[in-house]
Amino acid sequence: MTTRAGESDPQAGALRTADRTAIERRTRAIGRELFDRVGRSSRPWRRAWWEDRFMASTLADPEVRVQLFRFIDVLPALKTAGAVRRHLAEYLDEAGDRVPWWLRTAVALAPPGSAREGLLASAARTAAGVMARKFIAGSTPDEAFQTVLKLRARKVAFTADLLGEAVISEREADAYQQTCLDLIRGLAGPLAARPEVPQIDRDADGPIPRVNLSLKLSSLTTWFDPISPAATIARTAERLRPILRTARDLGAYVHVDMEQYDYRTLSYDLFEAVLGEDEFRDWPDVGVVVQAYQPDAEAELRRLDAFVERRGAPITVRLVKGAYWDYEVLTSRRHGWPEPVFLQKWRTDANYERCTRFLMERRANLRPAIASHNLRSLAHALAAAEALGLPPDAYELQTLHGMGEAVDDALVERGLRVRVYTPYGAMLPGMAYLVRRLLENTSNESFLKAGASGVAVDDLLRDPEETGAMLAKKRPARPESAPAALPPFRNEPVADFAKAEDRDVMADALRKVAGELGRAYPLILDGERIETPGRVAESLDPSQTTRVVGRVATADAGHADRAVAAARSVLNEWAARPADDRAAIVVRAAAILRERRFELAAWEVYECGKPWREADADVCEAIDFCEFYAREMVRLAEPRRRDVPGETNACDRLPRGVAVVIPPWNFPLAIPCGMTVGPLVAGCPVILKPAEQSPVVAAKLVEILHEAGVPPGVLHYLPGDGEEVGQALVNDARIAVVSFTGSRQVGLLLNKQAAETPKGQDHVKRVLAEMGGKNAILVDDDADLDEAVVGVLQSAFGYAGQKCSARPGARSASARPRIPTRSSAR
Amino acid sequence: MTTRAGESDPQAGALRTADRTAIERRTRAIGRELFDRVGRSSRPWRRAWWEDRFMASTLADPEVRVQLFRFIDVLPALKTAGAVRRHLAEYLDEAGDRVPWWLRTAVALAPPGSAREGLLASAARTAAGVMARKFIAGSTPDEAFQTVLKLRARKVAFTADLLGEAVISEREADAYQQTCLDLIRGLAGPLAARPEVPQIDRDADGPIPRVNLSLKLSSLTTWFDPISPAATIARTAERLRPILRTARDLGAYVHVDMEQYDYRTLSYDLFEAVLGEDEFRDWPDVGVVVQAYQPDAEAELRRLDAFVERRGAPITVRLVKGAYWDYEVLTSRRHGWPEPVFLQKWRTDANYERCTRFLMERRANLRPAIASHNLRSLAHALAAAEALGLPPDAYELQTLHGMGEAVDDALVERGLRVRVYTPYGAMLPGMAYLVRRLLENTSNESFLKAGASGVAVDDLLRDPEETGAMLAKKRPARPESAPAALPPFRNEPVADFAKAEDRDVMADALRKVAGELGRAYPLILDGERIETPGRVAESLDPSQTTRVVGRVATADAGHADRAVAAARSVLNEWAARPADDRAAIVVRAAAILRERRFELAAWEVYECGKPWREADADVCEAIDFCEFYAREMVRLAEPRRRDVPGETNACDRLPRGVAVVIPPWNFPLAIPCGMTVGPLVAGCPVILKPAEQSPVVAAKLVEILHEAGVPPGVLHYLPGDGEEVGQALVNDARIAVVSFTGSRQVGLLLNKQAAETPKGQDHVKRVLAEMGGKNAILVDDDADLDEAVVGVLQSAFGYAGQKCSARPGARSASARPRIPTRSSAR
Repeated sequence: MTTRAGESDPQAGALRTADRTAIERRTRAIGRELFDRVGRSSRPWRRAWWEDRFMASTLADPEVRVQLFRFIDVLPALKTAGAVRRHLAEYLDEAGDRVPWWLRTAVALAPPGSAREGLLASAARTAAGVMARKFIAGSTPDEAFQTVLKLRARKVAFTADLLGEAVISEREADAYQQTCLDLIRGLAGPLAARPEVPQIDRDADGPIPRVNLSLKLSSLTTWFDPISPAATIARTAERLRPILRTARDLGAYVHVDMEQYDYRTLSYDLFEAVLGEDEFRDWPDVGVVVQAYQPDAEAELRRLDAFVERRGAPITVRLVKGAYWDYEVLTSRRHGWPEPVFLQKWRTDANYERCTRFLMERRANLRPAIASHNLRSLAHALAAAEALGLPPDAYELQTLHGMGEAVDDALVERGLRVRVYTPYGAMLPGMAYLVRRLLENTSNESFLKAGASGVAVDDLLRDPEETGAMLAKKRPARPESAPAALPPFRNEPVADFAKAEDRDVMADALRKVAGELGRAYPLILDGERIETPGRVAESLDPSQTTRVVGRVATADAGHADRAVAAARSVLNEWAARPADDRAAIVVRAAAILRERRFELAAWEVYECGKPWREADADVCEAIDFCEFYAREMVRLAEPRRRDVPGETNACDRLPRGVAVVIPPWNFPLAIPCGMTVGPLVAGCPVILKPAEQSPVVAAKLVEILHEAGVPPGVLHYLPGDGEEVGQALVNDARIAVVSFTGSRQVGLLLNKQAAETPKGQDHVKRVLAEMGGKNAILVDDDADLDEAVVGVLQSAFGYAGQKCSARPGARSASARPRIPTRSSAR
Repeated sequence: MTTRAGESDPQAGALRTADRTAIERRTRAIGRELFDRVGRSSRPWRRAWWEDRFMASTLADPEVRVQLFRFIDVLPALKTAGAVRRHLAEYLDEAGDRVPWWLRTAVALAPPGSAREGLLASAARTAAGVMARKFIAGSTPDEAFQTVLKLRARKVAFTADLLGEAVISEREADAYQQTCLDLIRGLAGPLAARPEVPQIDRDADGPIPRVNLSLKLSSLTTWFDPISPAATIARTAERLRPILRTARDLGAYVHVDMEQYDYRTLSYDLFEAVLGEDEFRDWPDVGVVVQAYQPDAEAELRRLDAFVERRGAPITVRLVKGAYWDYEVLTSRRHGWPEPVFLQKWRTDANYERCTRFLMERRANLRPAIASHNLRSLAHALAAAEALGLPPDAYELQTLHGMGEAVDDALVERGLRVRVYTPYGAMLPGMAYLVRRLLENTSNESFLKAGASGVAVDDLLRDPEETGAMLAKKRPARPESAPAALPPFRNEPVADFAKAEDRDVMADALRKVAGELGRAYPLILDGERIETPGRVAESLDPSQTTRVVGRVATADAGHADRAVAAARSVLNEWAARPADDRAAIVVRAAAILRERRFELAAWEVYECGKPWREADADVCEAIDFCEFYAREMVRLAEPRRRDVPGETNACDRLPRGVAVVIPPWNFPLAIPCGMTVGPLVAGCPVILKPAEQSPVVAAKLVEILHEAGVPPGVLHYLPGDGEEVGQALVNDARIAVVSFTGSRQVGLLLNKQAAETPKGQDHVKRVLAEMGGKNAILVDDDADLDEAVVGVLQSAFGYAGQKCSARPGARSASARPRIPTRSSAR
């Protein structure tokens, strides 16, 4: 069976059953052979052998391992010997007596302030350096050249992985580009002058580039953001093209690495856009990565296959399992999104084999680069190639530098082309990479680890589908959980603007809302919609101040008096409603907010100049407040019991009374919503005086709450002048709660006014004032500064300085607090 | 073996081992014989048989039983048919579908407002009446006479138990006395005219009284209180003597019942005092109860034996197991006292047999009246009498009216004298009695119940000691629990002034403190004791205003300034102390308070005119505040965690800052203590400005807190004029918390002043104001009015109206809140 370029068989990748059985049989045979060779290659007379053994024994305990990796991660940032000692001691302390004796002794012998502290620090730095050099090829073209020569001596090819992933300034992006150019230029001449090593310098079609570079697209720009694909592609391509031109001119190869999931589509788009340009479309010495831990990896292969069909010249595809598994799982869970990767290792392995077969079949278009240390995966690739009649030079195998020389050698001995992925760059940015590699290498499911720990060869060579079937048998049926009145609280997932669907629906909402601008918003008082002719305020779009978002009525003291009277008259009735009922209304409001989320986000964009993500997150937070407070109320409604013999003691919470809510404009939906539904669900009628800058979004909120079932008398909408209607409300003797978020000046004034207890007031007013100020960010001396800078920038300037919260986080995280809690005024 | 009156063998009651074995053998033989007779006496042709069966089946389910008894208990109080239906439906609702079908149908067929509601109500009243008449002899002397005649026809004697236990007014006490007199007079003549029934009208020594009355001493006075034994004896004896005289003159017998444990010693004292008077000392027709569920019952028998030795004439002792078991266990646990009764039924049974043997041996002094329905206990009494050679008429057996006629008959057939304890009085007061009897009769461990449920006769006749040995074998070893840092919170047990020791130690403390009155109390400012010559206030004893309790310095605004500066300067240090440390100091303070509790209570008696129990409870509450807040702080110091993937979120509580504490005088130790240790343990330095009426007790508190380890700068004692020093403190910009308990006027003023935020104040002041007002007491329409009246009286007037709390409870309960919580100012 052979394949032809241009073939578009929908069954491509699905070898006949007979072939599959044969491949499986050959896979096992080749696998056992490889195991044999790897076993024989143990060479105790080489330093690497001892290093491996020592590392394996030190890192055998997972707790020790994690703590040592944490230490290595921060080591480059530590400026003094004392800091090194302190961090080592602190991290090892958490692993307790599982730490090896020699390591404990070393730390104990170097007490704080002692001379030996310096010795300990330099020993630690040396050890980390040794470790790093094991994995990193060098930090100058010359060092890299020496590494490459050593590899060539072992008949092993290389690709230089340029470290320095986190690029957060234009200067860094320029530097990354320059490093790429320098390395290509620095290696091309010297390597061209070396004698050919046919096993690695040519393939079935002739000579292949000796210089091979792997780069990350996101390192070529400070703003690699899928929310604006066209702009990102334009910006990034500008720095990419000179690298491609230089490589092409000097006969080097350029490979585009894949990063996290939300960069994926944009990265393929960029790859296709630039490599599809006339200048590059006939150049075959380029490639890209496909990650098999993504369930739709095969669809990406088909997409690339179709691209090559259009383009004409083939490309290389490096098939990996994927290095961002922890990150993807964590990020998606934090956002409440489905995980974009397989959660079970066997599924990734099985997918990897499917993708391998696809690549082998489509070899004419997509040159296979099978990157793995898993002998089963490698053996399967060899067997599949064999079944398809592909010669050994029709594809290559890739491994990680320093992670398994025995595997490389075994493959080389079999006459195969092996390329080693070789990090290149300075220690400092390399450390994060190193730790990620190490953690992956020593994680429980890692193949190398399994090999070292003596699992039977047959188990290691088992077909992943078979493993899956075995696991399915073992897994107990999921227990039926009783349906709760309300499912547990979870944050509303924000929109994923890396997805075109989400961008489209937002754009639609903006268009729709644009047609509704400029309408009138009357007061809503006891269910009555009241116009105030001659007293109408215009809410303007701050980003285009000629645009009127809405024409809003203005309440006066008389309206305030009527609203308070109406609210007071229904207080007892609302307070007597079971908490479950009030909670159900608020949950209903959450459902309506959810349904109208993009429309509401669009209103925020117009009325407050919110960026899309911020607007979306604000709507999500409003939903969170509803869902969270509803659950809290159900919980709090349960009387606290503290019985002693002969007594039945219960502590019930009662609503305080009518609440005035005076929110700010900067989170125009979330904060008014939280401040309003809190008292409402607790049984307090609310009079909402919205911020003068965002009355239209507040009107939408009130409309939704009434629609959800809040009775007319229980919630009133009184936009107006703070000094007029706000003042009248706060001073009213029938008001029990004043809830305010805003400036310190106004908050303190309200606090003072509310403390006057006018005649006839039968209670003490309660003031909740959240006043000016910004949360602090502390950046520790061992922090990842790249992460910290991005977090600070986003928190401080992500919304033009209009946030009280200042929260560092992953680059793709929104800055909204994930659990709706309001910090106190103190 | 025989016994002689006047014998004072210290080994009395300890029959020889040979005798014990013989008695055990005979006990089983007699027991089996009695079981036989009782079995044969089942007479289905009698209505009582059917009633018993019906009752047994209806009451078989414990849940239904409890609900029906609750209903019967409230029935007399229900005024309308609707109320009857509503209560029946509500109570049965709690038993759900375990309610018998006919009862559910009856309720369902009488919906609210229907005519059938009236039918249901009268049916319920009739049924309850039938039940009541089964147990209650009548409510007039004539009705009682008819009941007695029926009993005499069965050769059964009686004792009339006068219902109406809860006497809460002088008129009720007079009425109780009058009822006793009327009943003696009403029965004496008619019964004297009846033919003799020798089996019950005479004993070994000749004729015995035909009229037999059982009364309760506490019903003869409104204030039966062991805290003042002499006064109680004098008051009660006045109403008792006319009854004794009338009985003696008309040839009737008077028996003194025993009630709850805290009345016991006083009751025996009273019995001995009056029956030891010359007028009564030669009169043998009197008796008293001994309760075998009390571990020291035998000691009481010895005491009575010694009394008879002094007095000359014998008395009767009715040996019971005890009817207040639930009450005793509950009350003692509520107070944190050891239970005064056996917690295991077999121990009571074994003690009963020991006491039985003692009585039989001392028959010449203490005429045995063995009161039980337990055939084993009865058989053992018969066997013991037999072993001692006592004839059947040397003792009597007592049972409860309506509870087991078959048992009576079986004993009568054996030629024994059986006396039935026959409640006499109106339905209304009788109901509580009735329910207590019913609950006891149907409780799980009841002998009659066991008999009805088919337990093997041999099991029922087992020696209780043997049962104990069996249970001991079954019981698993108590699991060793890990010692906690702090044991769980429990309320400090109040003193038991029913005990002479507690009364004596309090009297000693009062004497000791009397010698310390009039001393000087300087300010305590930053550890310095500062006199204020020319500005000294006298704290006077309000019950004797010429008595100077202490001469107290007076702080001015300058002192306030210095104290705030000192407190502010140590704030960070105190706040940084681990919460565990601060909690340990406060627990140490609790230990010192505990050690000095009577002394401190004595200071309260002098400085605030507190009654003993109130003063003691106030000290206990102060201890509770320390112990409780210490634990709360340890709990609250644990950061609240709410992690989401990729985030570590912790919520820590920080001390607010320097606190001013302004407590009231009416709980001179507990409230200042709670208000002070709360902020202290939370990390806030405190300036305490004590109430002007109770500065001396506050000075003791401050002294104790410093002794426990509160640093000098962290706690300051500034007695003085509220308008001068209080004002200066509240207005100070460095103060963060103002904690006040007192009048509404002052509280609102402080609240207003604290809401001014002066220049340089970097926080909003927090005011905690607990202001004037009294807790409400709601008395439901089905409440036990006797209990409610006593509770209201005690709460409202127990401390001359000087309490904010108004808490009904059992008569012996103190009015202090058992869990230290402060109600909010609202």
